[in-house]
Amino acid sequence: MANDFFSRRNLDFTLFEVHKAQELTKYPYFKDHDQETFKLTLDAATEIAEKILRPAYVDSDRNQPELVNGKVTVHPGAHKFFKAFGEAGLTAAPFPFEMGGQQLPYTIFAAVDFITGAAHNSMVMFTGLCAGAAHLIASFGTQELIDTYVPKMLSGEWGGTMCLTEPQAGSSLSDVVTSATPQADGTYKIKGQKVFISAGDHDITDNIVHLVLARIDGAPKGTKGISLLVVPKNRIKADGTLESNNVTPMGVYHKMGQKATPAMHLGFGDNDDTIGYMVGEPNKGLKYMFQMMNGARLGVGMAGVYIGSAAYYASLQYAKERPQGRKLNDKDVNDAQTMIINHPDVRRMLLSQKAFVEGGLSFITQCHKYADLMHVSEDTDEKANLDALLELLTPVAKTFGAEAGIASVNQGVQVLGGYGYTEDFLLEQMARDVRIMSLYEGTTGIQSQALLGRQIPRNGGKGAILWGQEVMKDVSAAETFDELKPYCELMKKELGRFQQVTMHLLGVAGKGDIEVFLSDATLFMELFGILNVSWQWLKLATVAKQAMVMGNPEGEEALFYESKVHTMKYYFHYELPKTKGLATRLMDTTVLTTTMEAELVL
Amino acid sequence: MANDFFSRRNLDFTLFEVHKAQELTKYPYFKDHDQETFKLTLDAATEIAEKILRPAYVDSDRNQPELVNGKVTVHPGAHKFFKAFGEAGLTAAPFPFEMGGQQLPYTIFAAVDFITGAAHNSMVMFTGLCAGAAHLIASFGTQELIDTYVPKMLSGEWGGTMCLTEPQAGSSLSDVVTSATPQADGTYKIKGQKVFISAGDHDITDNIVHLVLARIDGAPKGTKGISLLVVPKNRIKADGTLESNNVTPMGVYHKMGQKATPAMHLGFGDNDDTIGYMVGEPNKGLKYMFQMMNGARLGVGMAGVYIGSAAYYASLQYAKERPQGRKLNDKDVNDAQTMIINHPDVRRMLLSQKAFVEGGLSFITQCHKYADLMHVSEDTDEKANLDALLELLTPVAKTFGAEAGIASVNQGVQVLGGYGYTEDFLLEQMARDVRIMSLYEGTTGIQSQALLGRQIPRNGGKGAILWGQEVMKDVSAAETFDELKPYCELMKKELGRFQQVTMHLLGVAGKGDIEVFLSDATLFMELFGILNVSWQWLKLATVAKQAMVMGNPEGEEALFYESKVHTMKYYFHYELPKTKGLATRLMDTTVLTTTMEAELVL
Repeated sequence: MANDFFSRRNLDFTLFEVHKAQELTKYPYFKDHDQETFKLTLDAATEIAEKILRPAYVDSDRNQPELVNGKVTVHPGAHKFFKAFGEAGLTAAPFPFEMGGQQLPYTIFAAVDFITGAAHNSMVMFTGLCAGAAHLIASFGTQELIDTYVPKMLSGEWGGTMCLTEPQAGSSLSDVVTSATPQADGTYKIKGQKVFISAGDHDITDNIVHLVLARIDGAPKGTKGISLLVVPKNRIKADGTLESNNVTPMGVYHKMGQKATPAMHLGFGDNDDTIGYMVGEPNKGLKYMFQMMNGARLGVGMAGVYIGSAAYYASLQYAKERPQGRKLNDKDVNDAQTMIINHPDVRRMLLSQKAFVEGGLSFITQCHKYADLMHVSEDTDEKANLDALLELLTPVAKTFGAEAGIASVNQGVQVLGGYGYTEDFLLEQMARDVRIMSLYEGTTGIQSQALLGRQIPRNGGKGAILWGQEVMKDVSAAETFDELKPYCELMKKELGRFQQVTMHLLGVAGKGDIEVFLSDATLFMELFGILNVSWQWLKLATVAKQAMVMGNPEGEEALFYESKVHTMKYYFHYELPKTKGLATRLMDTTVLTTTMEAELVL
Repeated sequence: MANDFFSRRNLDFTLFEVHKAQELTKYPYFKDHDQETFKLTLDAATEIAEKILRPAYVDSDRNQPELVNGKVTVHPGAHKFFKAFGEAGLTAAPFPFEMGGQQLPYTIFAAVDFITGAAHNSMVMFTGLCAGAAHLIASFGTQELIDTYVPKMLSGEWGGTMCLTEPQAGSSLSDVVTSATPQADGTYKIKGQKVFISAGDHDITDNIVHLVLARIDGAPKGTKGISLLVVPKNRIKADGTLESNNVTPMGVYHKMGQKATPAMHLGFGDNDDTIGYMVGEPNKGLKYMFQMMNGARLGVGMAGVYIGSAAYYASLQYAKERPQGRKLNDKDVNDAQTMIINHPDVRRMLLSQKAFVEGGLSFITQCHKYADLMHVSEDTDEKANLDALLELLTPVAKTFGAEAGIASVNQGVQVLGGYGYTEDFLLEQMARDVRIMSLYEGTTGIQSQALLGRQIPRNGGKGAILWGQEVMKDVSAAETFDELKPYCELMKKELGRFQQVTMHLLGVAGKGDIEVFLSDATLFMELFGILNVSWQWLKLATVAKQAMVMGNPEGEEALFYESKVHTMKYYFHYELPKTKGLATRLMDTTVLTTTMEAELVL
């Protein structure tokens, strides 16, 4: 039922039985699709994942890109993948028809990402970043910029990147100093350095289109003076040929994992001759970028989930095949050893992996469904509601996916014992790969401050109120099944406590002490993440119960649905109780991290 | 106050102010020592750590040992360290005078381990394993075996290893199949394979003494038929020269971290000519080995702590020097950026690292103090009590050190943001190194079953009862300070709940369902670990309060003691609440991991 890095059966269940992605096709924008075209898209992604990505996973880790004589050579698999994904129309898939896209819902495109990312989590960054950069040009650029860059980026001919971070301004984008000096012809001269630019240089394509945050000379300080510019590696001469735009690869970072994708240190402005082209209006760059970063944040959460998926199936397979010891109630050494999947502790670890992967997948799918509906809805109120939900849940989906991904891949290593620590099995690499997810696109601490500091109080708490209604809708559906009723009660109790905790914290904010208010935002995030995935599990279990009642499934199918109910129970009995400790701390008024002298940490 | 990988001030505080290691010198066995000789020993270890180990830390990771033409070449730093540590008398330090040792208490020797391990966690395995192997021969071998092997192993002339694990018997030692066939001359011919043998082959010494678990032909199945043999890489001919004993290096594992130490796959019995020498009585090998493994388990717990220490000081330094963003109550972009140590979320992470490292160090020091007292006590009852405490706490110290080590090094990575993921900073390597600790010497799952299944019920719960008395003694001392009283109340409440949880679980065991009883042993371990370190923090804070009252310290010294009280509060307000969720699950009677069909994990 599962291949070795994801379960198509579970993906279909999530997309079509639980979140009913096919219902999107009743909107005009998606009307050329149906469930079949969605499934064919997933098939195409699976073929590329199995034939190109998976075979390159280990080899591209052992042979990482190096910067030699100013050139970065990447793994041959990355070349093959970038072309194949573009040529299959997948890079362009969610773009509008008029740009060569397929108008595929993000709900489905995220599933494409899930499949390919589970096969090779770092190679998919080449296409992901390129599509993200193209999306920014398509959304905010002039028709000329669009015509010049977007088609080639979507077809696989050119690459693309996002250049945000600078050495002195990591998480603090308001401190970006890369400069853009206006020229008489309307272009800008760019000067500065960018660090951690994923896929920032490579030999796959003969051009790379960088989307660069920079500050026009004299622009206001802070976030209100940041502009977004297209800065190609090579600019296009009048005759259509390319010439160097003096974007200099200054170094490639050596990282713990995700080694297939070079993270570059780039210099702009050599010979005072790097040209940039303004996207949209000057000084609005950060606003444009944030729109794009919402998608990127969901993408990082999904990355935690898809590496978690690959790790889950790898450790599950090991547990089914590895004999070791005897069952706890069998001390007879004459008996053969039992497979380790029969040890309760191993099952607990596997269940935690399964609960995270399938619950996390459902949670992120939920977010994409909101995004797609917001895109196509014509009802202003509905649009605003969906926007509020999405803004609230995006940092949570990012953080839950990342943190639970790290935890669950590490459970996978633990299932393998000492072998999990060696390069003989994939878990070792996965553990290194997944570790970045709580750092990419805003660390867990930054996301948590965005959640508690901005999204929870936003619009009088509109997002949180709508969220409570969404959860209660699914609780009501679950209540029709006796087996699920106790879990509905638990969920309602948790919602009540969450409200208490939130009101308590907003009370602190009301007194004006913003530092104290936000000091434990990361714990608030953890609490809210657990509640969101509990909600999703109640939903998954409800749909499974409905399928069992309506369809009377047998054999593997019956087990499939039963396993959803069982895993929901695992989540409620093992993960949900963690909210008790979190709520205790969040309601605790003893302040320890803002009043102390820094010297007390020594 | 701290150098860049540990704080000597804190180590002295732990050893001499809190656990009063100097009081051991009143026992005849330790009478040639005093606090000064202890400190000189720590100075000697520090010098080797700073001059030899630390400089080799990164380079030995980037150039890992390979097996080429049957030979394993290790890093030059490992050669230097092995000789220097032996020649300084440190390998032999805890051994009796008559074997060339110094009769140093393990309490102090563990601090030597802490210092050197913090500098280079994998290089210290060469000496640690050699001393462990020598200790086994010294404890159970004939005088002839002792005279032949021990002096050379302790001086740094020969190496040593422990050969337990086999491909088909990882955690299940009862399934060892390596064979020992008796010869007419009293020796044995050895045949079999061992895997994951740390320092199992190298070019540092011209001989390596393997301590091998094997089964004499026809021995009883299971643990009662396992013998312990000395199997040197090269055996000693009548004329004193060496000849090959046909121990074949079959492969070196490539691991996530700890790369300086080769983990070998070894073959015994090539040409049917590998000779072994029995240690102690046949079939008692596992008993002997377990004695040694207790020390090794404390050592692995300590390794979690010392890597945590090195990670803590690395991330603390970064946080003090890295400007990023502004304080949460300062949105003025004209202000300079603040150092990240001023962000509450960063302080929370640093405090969690500090709380783990210092609390964990104190906990393991407590265990070693028990071990030293047990060794020298002449009171049979006291000896038995100390043995009960030590047996109870050893799996906990191992597991807490390992798991909290992994968690806190990862907090350190998080403090550095994206830089933490790169090889430009040490955290990246530390995170890879520390990951093994929850697998070495019995995984967390195995330790947890030993704790709940064997140690808690042992002797009518004697160990747990004594433990409660030990904790209450320190609670009483803490109660003399008003500031500590609320924490004493919390501790007493937690002890009550722990008793409830334990009685509940023993009730399940009493009904005979051992699988259900042990199914959540890992969560019981986590709960008990938190309580133990809470206990230690109460103790650390009490001693700090006493020092503040008695000594009236000023400046850095005053801050040093205040930071202990502050960090105790952190532990009680942030870590201790986690027991609520754990206790909830442990008292929960819904069984999910033993009754399910294995197919439900799919």
